[in-house]
Amino acid sequence: MSIGEFAFLERLRALATHPAARGLEDDAAVIGDMVLTHDSIAEGIHYLSDDPPASVGWKLVAVNLSDLAAKGAEPIAALMSVTIGGDGEWEERFLSGVAAACEAYHLPLVGGDTIALPAGSPRVLGLTAIGRGGTNIPSRGGGRPGNRLWLVGVLGDAATGLATLRHDPKAEGPLVEAYRRPVPQLAAGRALATAATAMMDVSDGLLLDLQRMCNASRCGARVDLSALPLSRGFIAERGNSRTSRLSAATGGDDYALLAALPEDFDPAVSLSLPSRTIIAPIGSLVPGSSISLFDEKGEVPIPERLGYEHHRA
Amino acid sequence: MSIGEFAFLERLRALATHPAARGLEDDAAVIGDMVLTHDSIAEGIHYLSDDPPASVGWKLVAVNLSDLAAKGAEPIAALMSVTIGGDGEWEERFLSGVAAACEAYHLPLVGGDTIALPAGSPRVLGLTAIGRGGTNIPSRGGGRPGNRLWLVGVLGDAATGLATLRHDPKAEGPLVEAYRRPVPQLAAGRALATAATAMMDVSDGLLLDLQRMCNASRCGARVDLSALPLSRGFIAERGNSRTSRLSAATGGDDYALLAALPEDFDPAVSLSLPSRTIIAPIGSLVPGSSISLFDEKGEVPIPERLGYEHHRA
Repeated sequence: MSIGEFAFLERLRALATHPAARGLEDDAAVIGDMVLTHDSIAEGIHYLSDDPPASVGWKLVAVNLSDLAAKGAEPIAALMSVTIGGDGEWEERFLSGVAAACEAYHLPLVGGDTIALPAGSPRVLGLTAIGRGGTNIPSRGGGRPGNRLWLVGVLGDAATGLATLRHDPKAEGPLVEAYRRPVPQLAAGRALATAATAMMDVSDGLLLDLQRMCNASRCGARVDLSALPLSRGFIAERGNSRTSRLSAATGGDDYALLAALPEDFDPAVSLSLPSRTIIAPIGSLVPGSSISLFDEKGEVPIPERLGYEHHRA
Repeated sequence: MSIGEFAFLERLRALATHPAARGLEDDAAVIGDMVLTHDSIAEGIHYLSDDPPASVGWKLVAVNLSDLAAKGAEPIAALMSVTIGGDGEWEERFLSGVAAACEAYHLPLVGGDTIALPAGSPRVLGLTAIGRGGTNIPSRGGGRPGNRLWLVGVLGDAATGLATLRHDPKAEGPLVEAYRRPVPQLAAGRALATAATAMMDVSDGLLLDLQRMCNASRCGARVDLSALPLSRGFIAERGNSRTSRLSAATGGDDYALLAALPEDFDPAVSLSLPSRTIIAPIGSLVPGSSISLFDEKGEVPIPERLGYEHHRA
C-alpha cells in the first residue's frame, strides 16, 4: 500500500464515525436490521483480463453476498455500477454471469449506474448488496479468549486455481472454478450468526483475516494447521504438507466463513446447517494479540505474508 | 450511445424485473420505505479533470442526494467506492469535499471500497445513498394529464458555468459554483413528495428529463418557456431571450426538482417549504406523448437536443 493510499484510508476512517460504519473495519455496515456492503472489482486486480466475462459477473455478485453471509443476512437487493467500453460484447457476457448469480441467490437487481469510459480504460465493476440481518448480527469484534474458531468451506482451492491460470490461461477444473465462481455461504452464515460472538468472511487469506478479527476483538488466536479443511483437488495438486497447508492459510479468494463460537457450542450439532456444509473447528481465540500456529509436529512459524491485501476500505 | 451500450442497457432492464427496480427508469429503487440509489461519476465525463478535487467530492454526494430528494427521502447512510492512483493528494482533497457534503446534509458515510488502479486510469467515483421515504414515495410514472408541473430551483446556471470553465479553466463565480457544487433539494423534496403524483430530479436537462417523466406517466406536457426560473447571474451572462431560455431548458447538471401536482394544488400555499425555496409552475401534463413549448410570443419549436445523456442505467 502506498503512503497516499494509507493516508487516504486513515482520513476515510476519521470521516466514518457513525456507529453503523463499524469503523470501516467490518465486512458490512449495519443500520437497524439492514446490512449494507459495497465491493468493487477491477480488471487486472481482482480478476484476470482473460477470465470469462460471465465468471467475472458471477464473482462480483458472489463476493458481495459473501459479506452479507458473514453477517448472517438474507439478501434483499443489489445496485450495480458498471463501466462500459468497446462494442458491448464483453459486457453482455458479464451480465449473463450477474444474472446467473442473482438468480441462484434470489437477489433482485434494483438499480445502479452505467458509465461509458474510453476504450482501454480498466473496467471497474461495483455492487452494493443490501440484506436483512437476524436477531444477532455479529461483528468482527465480539470474539473473546476461549471462543472456538470454526471455518465453513475449504481453503486454498481458489488461490491454487489462480496460480494454475497464471501458468495456463486455458486451464479448467474445480480449482479454477473455485477461483472464478466463489460460492457465498449464505445459509451457513444465517445459522452461525445466531450463536457467533464474531464472524467474517475469509477473502484475503485466513491468517490475514483472522488477524483482523483478533485486532477487532482485542485478543490473539491459536490455529491448528492440520485442522484446516482442504479439498481433494487441492491435495492432489499441492499435497498435504505443512508448506501446502500454509499456502492454503494465506492464499486468499476463498470466500469461506470464519466464526468465533462459545467453547462448548458445537454448530454441527446445535444448528441446522445445510446438509453439505463443510465446517471444521480450526483453533481458538486466546489472550494476547498475536496468532500462533501448530500442527501434529508442534509449533509452526508464522509466515511473513499472512494473505493478500486488496486495499479495502 | 453506442449499439453496445444500448444493447447492454436493454439486457440490464430485462434482468431488473423486481418491482423495487421500477424498470430501472426511476431516480431510485424503492424497497418498503427504503430508497436506494447509486450514481458514479467519472473523470472527463461528469467532471473536468482540472475541477478542484473537493468540488468533485461534494458533487458525488450531492448528485446522489438529489436522487433521494426526488423521492422525498431523508438520507440515512452512504457507501462510497473510490479508485485511487498516484500520490493520494488529489484523493485527500476530494475527501474533504465528500466530508463537507456529508456534514451539510447529515449523511453518515458507513462503508465502501477503495481500489488502487494504475496511475493514469480515469478515476471512477461511486456512491450508494440510502434514504427513508415518507408516506408517499412518488415515482416518475404517476403523472396524469391535467397535473401542473412545478420546478424547484433554477435552470441553466450549471451548464453556463461549465461552458465558462471550458473557455477559462480559472473562471469563478456563482455559475461556476452551481456547476461544481450542486445543492440537492432535500427539504423541498420531502414536502412535495406528500402531494406529488410524479417527481424526479432534473439532472440531464429539463426537456430530456420531462420527456422521461412523460414516457413513464404515458402522457405529454406543455411547458411555458417564459415561466422557467432563471437566476440573475444566468440572465446577466446569457440574456433572457427565447434562445437563452431554450439553452436553460436543455443544459443539464441543474439538480432541480420537477414535480407533477394536482391542478388545484398550490405547493407555495399548502406545503411548508424552506423559506428560500425557488419554486415555479412551468406548465402542465397533457394527453398524448409529446412535449410542446410556448412563450409570450406563441408556440416554440422543440429543439433537436433535449438534454445531455449520461448513459445512466
